[in-house]
Amino acid sequence: MLNCAILGARSHTGIELIKILLRHPHVRLSHLVTGQKQALPLTQVLGTLPKDVNLEIRPFRFAEIQKKADLIFLCLPHTESMEKAAAFRKAGKIVIDLSADFRLNSWRVYESWYGVKHGQKELLKEAVYGLSELFRSKIEKSDLIANPGCYPTGAILGIAPLLKRHLIDEGSLVIDAKSGVSGAGKKLKPETQFCEVDENFYAYKVGRHQHTPEIEQALSEVAGEEIEVSFVPHLLPIERGILSTIYLQKKKSVKTEDLQKAYLEDYGQEPFVRLKAPGTYPSLKDVQRTNFCDIGLFCDEERGQVIVITAIDNLIKGASGQAVQNMNIRCGFQEEEGLRTW
Amino acid sequence: MLNCAILGARSHTGIELIKILLRHPHVRLSHLVTGQKQALPLTQVLGTLPKDVNLEIRPFRFAEIQKKADLIFLCLPHTESMEKAAAFRKAGKIVIDLSADFRLNSWRVYESWYGVKHGQKELLKEAVYGLSELFRSKIEKSDLIANPGCYPTGAILGIAPLLKRHLIDEGSLVIDAKSGVSGAGKKLKPETQFCEVDENFYAYKVGRHQHTPEIEQALSEVAGEEIEVSFVPHLLPIERGILSTIYLQKKKSVKTEDLQKAYLEDYGQEPFVRLKAPGTYPSLKDVQRTNFCDIGLFCDEERGQVIVITAIDNLIKGASGQAVQNMNIRCGFQEEEGLRTW
Amino acid sequence: MLNCAILGARSHTGIELIKILLRHPHVRLSHLVTGQKQALPLTQVLGTLPKDVNLEIRPFRFAEIQKKADLIFLCLPHTESMEKAAAFRKAGKIVIDLSADFRLNSWRVYESWYGVKHGQKELLKEAVYGLSELFRSKIEKSDLIANPGCYPTGAILGIAPLLKRHLIDEGSLVIDAKSGVSGAGKKLKPETQFCEVDENFYAYKVGRHQHTPEIEQALSEVAGEEIEVSFVPHLLPIERGILSTIYLQKKKSVKTEDLQKAYLEDYGQEPFVRLKAPGTYPSLKDVQRTNFCDIGLFCDEERGQVIVITAIDNLIKGASGQAVQNMNIRCGFQEEEGLRTW
Amino acid sequence: MLNCAILGARSHTGIELIKILLRHPHVRLSHLVTGQKQALPLTQVLGTLPKDVNLEIRPFRFAEIQKKADLIFLCLPHTESMEKAAAFRKAGKIVIDLSADFRLNSWRVYESWYGVKHGQKELLKEAVYGLSELFRSKIEKSDLIANPGCYPTGAILGIAPLLKRHLIDEGSLVIDAKSGVSGAGKKLKPETQFCEVDENFYAYKVGRHQHTPEIEQALSEVAGEEIEVSFVPHLLPIERGILSTIYLQKKKSVKTEDLQKAYLEDYGQEPFVRLKAPGTYPSLKDVQRTNFCDIGLFCDEERGQVIVITAIDNLIKGASGQAVQNMNIRCGFQEEEGLRTW
Repeated sequence: MLNCAILGARSHTGIELIKILLRHPHVRLSHLVTGQKQALPLTQVLGTLPKDVNLEIRPFRFAEIQKKADLIFLCLPHTESMEKAAAFRKAGKIVIDLSADFRLNSWRVYESWYGVKHGQKELLKEAVYGLSELFRSKIEKSDLIANPGCYPTGAILGIAPLLKRHLIDEGSLVIDAKSGVSGAGKKLKPETQFCEVDENFYAYKVGRHQHTPEIEQALSEVAGEEIEVSFVPHLLPIERGILSTIYLQKKKSVKTEDLQKAYLEDYGQEPFVRLKAPGTYPSLKDVQRTNFCDIGLFCDEERGQVIVITAIDNLIKGASGQAVQNMNIRCGFQEEEGLRTW
Repeated sequence: MLNCAILGARSHTGIELIKILLRHPHVRLSHLVTGQKQALPLTQVLGTLPKDVNLEIRPFRFAEIQKKADLIFLCLPHTESMEKAAAFRKAGKIVIDLSADFRLNSWRVYESWYGVKHGQKELLKEAVYGLSELFRSKIEKSDLIANPGCYPTGAILGIAPLLKRHLIDEGSLVIDAKSGVSGAGKKLKPETQFCEVDENFYAYKVGRHQHTPEIEQALSEVAGEEIEVSFVPHLLPIERGILSTIYLQKKKSVKTEDLQKAYLEDYGQEPFVRLKAPGTYPSLKDVQRTNFCDIGLFCDEERGQVIVITAIDNLIKGASGQAVQNMNIRCGFQEEEGLRTW
Repeated sequence: MLNCAILGARSHTGIELIKILLRHPHVRLSHLVTGQKQALPLTQVLGTLPKDVNLEIRPFRFAEIQKKADLIFLCLPHTESMEKAAAFRKAGKIVIDLSADFRLNSWRVYESWYGVKHGQKELLKEAVYGLSELFRSKIEKSDLIANPGCYPTGAILGIAPLLKRHLIDEGSLVIDAKSGVSGAGKKLKPETQFCEVDENFYAYKVGRHQHTPEIEQALSEVAGEEIEVSFVPHLLPIERGILSTIYLQKKKSVKTEDLQKAYLEDYGQEPFVRLKAPGTYPSLKDVQRTNFCDIGLFCDEERGQVIVITAIDNLIKGASGQAVQNMNIRCGFQEEEGLRTW
Repeated sequence: MLNCAILGARSHTGIELIKILLRHPHVRLSHLVTGQKQALPLTQVLGTLPKDVNLEIRPFRFAEIQKKADLIFLCLPHTESMEKAAAFRKAGKIVIDLSADFRLNSWRVYESWYGVKHGQKELLKEAVYGLSELFRSKIEKSDLIANPGCYPTGAILGIAPLLKRHLIDEGSLVIDAKSGVSGAGKKLKPETQFCEVDENFYAYKVGRHQHTPEIEQALSEVAGEEIEVSFVPHLLPIERGILSTIYLQKKKSVKTEDLQKAYLEDYGQEPFVRLKAPGTYPSLKDVQRTNFCDIGLFCDEERGQVIVITAIDNLIKGASGQAVQNMNIRCGFQEEEGLRTW
């Protein structure tokens, strides 16, 4: 049994992690930790649990975790994550960080987009970007996995196969993404009050969302050259799910079947990527509460327009599910363990 | 007093028209018509009316309408609208058609996108496309006004000022639009059942939505050359509103202020177009139940990316409100009459 | 023109008041006031307004309001309202208070349910309970109108006609009420965050909601004896509206038509109470954004069960609409002025 | 392995059954059946399934099912269920019927509330009412289990412990129930269209819902005398869940702790009934997608008012979950098998 600790256990992603890991045959939830002073029965925080689940959420005690835990999941705000990651790496633990702190290779880019200092620049070199399907072989060997952001997961999985094979113009990538409200976290904000969100819809952080450099970094790595994207996130009046509509221009000679083949080659054997049949497109209902990324493809050969639509659950494939997938990869478990839900 | 008849009075757009015209000081609702056999008190269909409103919805009787009505609003499915429009034009009535039947100049384009025959090809020449802000002077003199589609209204208003002044690349127009469910009409369909829509989100008719040629026709007219767009509509789990996120590439020498100036010149004096302050963007809440089109602009000068976001109420500015605006223009009433709501 | 000041202009009820009074032909919004330091354009707070509305929300300045305003609407939290009401009454102004501070005749009851001291006990004697349909003649003459709570409005209007005529058992009143989230105000709370409310439903403050004594006081006055109710409020995942399902036992000899007659006598001529036809029941859609209270009645003569269902918009008839109705009554305007919306 | 057939596999309850049984270690889904002519991959109907699930939904073939299936779940409309149940009982199969056809002991009551003939009167004697917690010992031995309705499940579980011990007045039972839209089935109806339900709320079938006699029959059996209830169902604008607020009068001498003790005795060891701590009440979020029934209790000793609030997922504990619970009881599996979800 792998002893796992979760820091930030009451956050949206912490709760989802607990839900998944309680189903995982090879994991023991050794430490559930939050900032509060007193211990709290897990059943009070996660109301759907059976009566006989006796776990507690406890205050942070480094020594205890150091002694018993094998792997640490960090579900903390960025900057908080940084310090904890360093401490646990020093203690020899495997760390899977769900924050943004180790996703960007360059601390300069991090500091400019997040507006804070990066206090663990050295550790950046060690970190591996945990987009499971793209970087599996690196994840297998890494002890510091930077779990991808929710928007980047949906966007990168949709574009990578085409960019890698140079089937599309590198200069015309538009990503129009729409996310459920759980993506905004649990902190009290006027804009996530029910009466603000209900029956409403709007774009936010236009031209300045912090996931932009993360998307561009991964796509640039895939393409082997600098990639720029136009990325606009929107807030959906629903709890969970991200749908990304991606607009591309194919290269002249490329045919629809070349595009289809690219996805099939890359994802045909992937357990968590499902390719929609031609003429059909993803729907959030089909991915909610699952670790799937669904991908649909449209190509107007005459006009050269390519439209790729991807759907994920922002809390599962976009966060906690992918974190477990990465744990499974890293620890040699079967990749779907804990994640076969419907 | 202008005597107005509404055919299709129980449709979403019919109901909204009634709501607006009941507030209009110069209009008398002389005929409210639907397909059913018996008369029906309007209060049964529109439950928010005061007790003392005594109107009835009645079966269609051409002779009665011909005798008394001055202006006919057609809130009918396409193809049904066609024949009624012809009959009432022959009778010398002003016709404002909310269907798609007279929006496209070319019956060939109509027949290929709508998959039905156009039975009133001659009448097409007479029809004026009723996007109030763009074609006001034609609307003033026309007796057959083709009221625009909901998606085209939001898209065209957002792009026209830039295209007209050749500030953007003509070859890279992406329109990502999201609409509330009322846009789908009242016909019973599995996909508009509550349990299908609730907490869900998806794109539909990807690459084949019938509003595509309507958008392209109007933009081509504005640009003075053939314009092609990439247009994908999505279904929002809300009742009303369309948000369109439009991605453009500016021409090299163009500055942000050139773009801002274009909007200000075209819409600064328009009562129903509101330009958002720099750095702020439209939200559906601000336009629901109003005739406004809100427009927000983002420009990344370095990268050349231009993002325009527009918001309308699909049933008001996207249908019945604009129909009344067009009536006001045509009949010499003050343009805001009946439409000053908040 | 009546000069009206609104304190608490950014609250849900303040905003609705502004929306109504902007339509009122005899009112000038002379002062819109909130706690903040700087003036703020009203269009920033109420996004649906036309461009040409130039009002501002300003910090509180007693002297200015005293000089110009004729009538003061207080949309403040309880206890804050108290002091302001006293000051403006001393200055000879008409005060309509939307808080709970002057609704309960007894300060002892107030203090026990609200858990705070009542600092204006003397003023309580002057205050009139502003349930328009029941206490119109008192409202006409009062300068301190305690506008009813949202739940009490729907409950009392539903029960009063039967209780007044002693048609039902006084000892078995059950009020099961369900309210939209706007009833909870704008203060940031975890329980009104979107992800908590969305797709959820629950009862709250079971057995201890502060509207209970208000309902009991009004019903006791109507019945001429002490009335106790079982009242449970619930939170609906919608923005606005309250539906109250009221369970009563009729007295033995009473017939269905006696019940119907009671409602017809009391409300037949009321502009804002609509009685549903037998076998039909209210729906929130029909009252949202209106000042109506809809009432439906079911009676199982054999079993003696009587079920009364009422629906209101909690922000209109349950707050700001009724406040304007009371102003109209007090100031001799036509009672529907500003409130004929649909 | 138990071979299970599901008739009506595309209904809401059929789909939930499939989801549960795919997790069940002792069950093989041998036949998934619907009315349509052609076979259909299950993945097309249940979009959240992993790629490697290869089941099909097939047309009905009695002989095939008779040959291989051990147990038949009927997720069919009432009256359709009747005939199929008879045929499969004749073939010696265990039948769990999720329709209403065998819930009422008396065919006269059935015919009067459902308005149709009961074609299998003889079989009624054989049927056992499958409210697992109350009738476990009968269910263990029965081959025809009438799975309870969704409203009755929540109502009966909430009242039975008190009624059984004669702690409350038998003459004053009020059940105010609120259900998500999935309870209305998948048949296309105007009232379940998104635009009708969204932001709306209302009571329906007031005084004439067909679950009334089912509740009264079970409570009468528990009480040992004729019980009548006042039951009003309401439609919540959410997908799933039923909250029932039950108003009772306690007998004079009864104390709060007597009531608490009753629940503890009956449900303390039940895996699927969770008693809320004093002062806390159920919430739909805590039971959605689970087989739990949560129960909260309020007692005002002075006034004698007792309020019981129960919450279930209408599709799980109110239908398919309880059906599997009953299968587990009948077939000697562990009662929670397939149902431990969170």
